[in-house]
Amino acid sequence: MSVQQVLEALSDPARRSVVRTLAHSPADLSCGSFDLPVGRSTSSHHFSVLREAGLLRQYYVGTTKMNTLRAEELERRFPGLLSAVVAAADAEALDTAPS
Amino acid sequence: MSVQQVLEALSDPARRSVVRTLAHSPADLSCGSFDLPVGRSTSSHHFSVLREAGLLRQYYVGTTKMNTLRAEELERRFPGLLSAVVAAADAEALDTAPS
Repeated sequence: MSVQQVLEALSDPARRSVVRTLAHSPADLSCGSFDLPVGRSTSSHHFSVLREAGLLRQYYVGTTKMNTLRAEELERRFPGLLSAVVAAADAEALDTAPS
Repeated sequence: MSVQQVLEALSDPARRSVVRTLAHSPADLSCGSFDLPVGRSTSSHHFSVLREAGLLRQYYVGTTKMNTLRAEELERRFPGLLSAVVAAADAEALDTAPS
């Protein structure tokens, strides 16, 4: 898990939206449950980037691919980083004023 | 100042190195004082990206361009983000073990 890969993974709005949604979800979520404004193959690419950066773990339940945010491992490796990015993304999503 | 621009700016090792050096410096630093492993025009581009993302403020002293890290403004806008990235970059720089 490198800071370079983690920051690159988080430097995309669709991927940040996935991380943010998982951070606020009480349970793991299937890839299909995210309403990303991109096609299926781009969506699949985003999940791969997040998994390869170490942000997500994926597993199957039947034919459904599920996603776990690796929040504790990230916190141990890079304390405060994930929560700061999620908080920043939350603040921006709630900020309806023009920037 | 957007989380997208800030994360993109920090998703480059040379730019992260500039931010890290400024974060640990007791004083503002000139562009020339950073020992970046890139040419002059690439270096100039990196400083522009950091300035446009809102991470740096630049000013001249004579013909020398100086850089100020906008740490307090970043902390107000995105609490904990800059310090978490600097700490992560510090940890990785000190980590001599193969990843």
